[in-house]
Amino acid sequence: MVPKVVFGEGCFNQLSSILSSQAKEKAPFIFLVDDVFEGNTEFIDRIKIRFNDKLIFISAAHEPRTSQVDALVKGIKSEFTTIPAGIIGIGGGTVMDLAKATAIMLTNKGSASDYQGWDLVKQKAVYHVGIPTISGTGAEVSRTTVLTGPVRKLGINSDFTPFDQVILDPELTKGVSKNQWFFTGMDCFIHCVESLNGTFLNAFSQSYGEKAYDLCMEIFLDDTLSEEESRAKLMMASWHGGMSIAYSQVGVAHAMSYGLGYVLGTKHGVGNCIVFQHLEEFYPKDVLLFKKMTLKHKIEIPQEICKNISETQMDTMIGVALGMVPLWENALGANWKSIITHEKLKELYLKM
Amino acid sequence: MVPKVVFGEGCFNQLSSILSSQAKEKAPFIFLVDDVFEGNTEFIDRIKIRFNDKLIFISAAHEPRTSQVDALVKGIKSEFTTIPAGIIGIGGGTVMDLAKATAIMLTNKGSASDYQGWDLVKQKAVYHVGIPTISGTGAEVSRTTVLTGPVRKLGINSDFTPFDQVILDPELTKGVSKNQWFFTGMDCFIHCVESLNGTFLNAFSQSYGEKAYDLCMEIFLDDTLSEEESRAKLMMASWHGGMSIAYSQVGVAHAMSYGLGYVLGTKHGVGNCIVFQHLEEFYPKDVLLFKKMTLKHKIEIPQEICKNISETQMDTMIGVALGMVPLWENALGANWKSIITHEKLKELYLKM
Repeated sequence: MVPKVVFGEGCFNQLSSILSSQAKEKAPFIFLVDDVFEGNTEFIDRIKIRFNDKLIFISAAHEPRTSQVDALVKGIKSEFTTIPAGIIGIGGGTVMDLAKATAIMLTNKGSASDYQGWDLVKQKAVYHVGIPTISGTGAEVSRTTVLTGPVRKLGINSDFTPFDQVILDPELTKGVSKNQWFFTGMDCFIHCVESLNGTFLNAFSQSYGEKAYDLCMEIFLDDTLSEEESRAKLMMASWHGGMSIAYSQVGVAHAMSYGLGYVLGTKHGVGNCIVFQHLEEFYPKDVLLFKKMTLKHKIEIPQEICKNISETQMDTMIGVALGMVPLWENALGANWKSIITHEKLKELYLKM
Repeated sequence: MVPKVVFGEGCFNQLSSILSSQAKEKAPFIFLVDDVFEGNTEFIDRIKIRFNDKLIFISAAHEPRTSQVDALVKGIKSEFTTIPAGIIGIGGGTVMDLAKATAIMLTNKGSASDYQGWDLVKQKAVYHVGIPTISGTGAEVSRTTVLTGPVRKLGINSDFTPFDQVILDPELTKGVSKNQWFFTGMDCFIHCVESLNGTFLNAFSQSYGEKAYDLCMEIFLDDTLSEEESRAKLMMASWHGGMSIAYSQVGVAHAMSYGLGYVLGTKHGVGNCIVFQHLEEFYPKDVLLFKKMTLKHKIEIPQEICKNISETQMDTMIGVALGMVPLWENALGANWKSIITHEKLKELYLKM
């Protein structure tokens, strides 16, 4: 778990005092910042770059890749003679995941793709801080960093992955577009549904999952919250949702969304929504609620994205989805193969 | 926050593999174990004492004292030439708090009483593990260790206080007596009520507090849970309740209960119950619910414990309670002194 967290509107201002306790002579802090903030001088000035610190803008247009991590690490190593004092990720799930992976790969040999899996990381990562500016993915609290590699889309799951410090400032999520707000919020809702309906559920995950689920219901279906309350609550929903899956597993929507992401590059949040709307047979009550939320907020979920894909693409997509064994086991139990076949997935994907 | 946690029935068996990663040559692990387990060889055998490890039984008959911490540290330092590799607390709130304080005082000079307050600890504590065997206090997750010192009852609140590892095994709470189960569970319920009704509340604490509150309602008022589910859920209620007050504050019941504890040695859990039953004017809805729970489980809350105390004792008790400024500010706002006077507290204590 993340050992240190500060919370509250405006607490982003504590960043430089938090970092000062980690300062080391000549060692820079590297800030990975979502490029949505490029040109936003008011915001960038608040980061307080000093000495040889470096700010790198990151595009979140694509899901993070192992090659991107390798390039970041190579760049940092060639520019600086000392290992950085810290990596600070400021952005959504993509930037969070890149920050975690970069911190790991600065102290571990080889390529990020060598560490996709469970507990393969040997050396402690560089000190790393997560500052989410979009709520929902749970990447700020999770023990993984999901990366698209040369052969698979899979996380680096390890005890060294979680951030050393997280700064939860709901004010930072103010400028998020409505679609992004919804899709990323639904990432939280959907992984709670999958965790709470999974066979791996336990009282630990259940308590976190239920709270995040309740918060999502309040945020996306009630009309009682102010904007400020809603922002703060979604940030907490993301946090608890991430904690819930840390000790359980996701399910059908995530397995199939990984397939979409791998083949079509569909972003994780919207990919989950594209899949989830067609999962009535697995999560009947919650797919109904999801559709209610979609209507209420007038969100258009992309349709027919698999209509024109090739047979090879379809096979790859199905292969990636079927490869997510723990997700299927969680969703449907040990006998999941009697329910989920190549044909079944093809039928489902063709609806999307 | 606690960086590492395992959860689940039977996960106590992971203790020795968890400790093996922290082993250092010649350095012992010191196990502080609630003396309720003395003579329970089946349980003690599961701890797997090795080499020069040491097991110390701790009586939880009294609230933990700074002098007790100092004596434990002196004993350990005189017996071993190296600093221990770890302190492992196995028990309820008292043992948890002693384990945390002992770990701190092994690396910090002077008496534990020098560190009662906020952020006074200078050196990182010895690696310490918390294993609760009673649920409710939140001591397994909190950033404090409440101790009775020569001049006050106050916690050592610091970044070094939280456990490095917690093992949440609901099975360990099986043998707890009904009264103890209720009083300690109500500690959780009451600190959630105080946090949720406090002026310091924020979305972070609220989300944890609401979840713990909901779990308490389910555990103590519904009849739908199996014993196993109820045990697991109370362990999680304790966890979330502790997280809730980590980022907010308690209130009237805790302030007055500290007074009882200081003067009469009343244990924290039962002290909270003794006070809370008379706080209708501050927490009307929740005092009613509390009385319903008391009736449902046929619990007798001690009555008239202040009947025969001396004037001096009463004055000391009121002085201790009034000294808890942040608790009153949280409960009643900046103008709390217009509501809570010496006379008002005397009137309330005389009801107890």
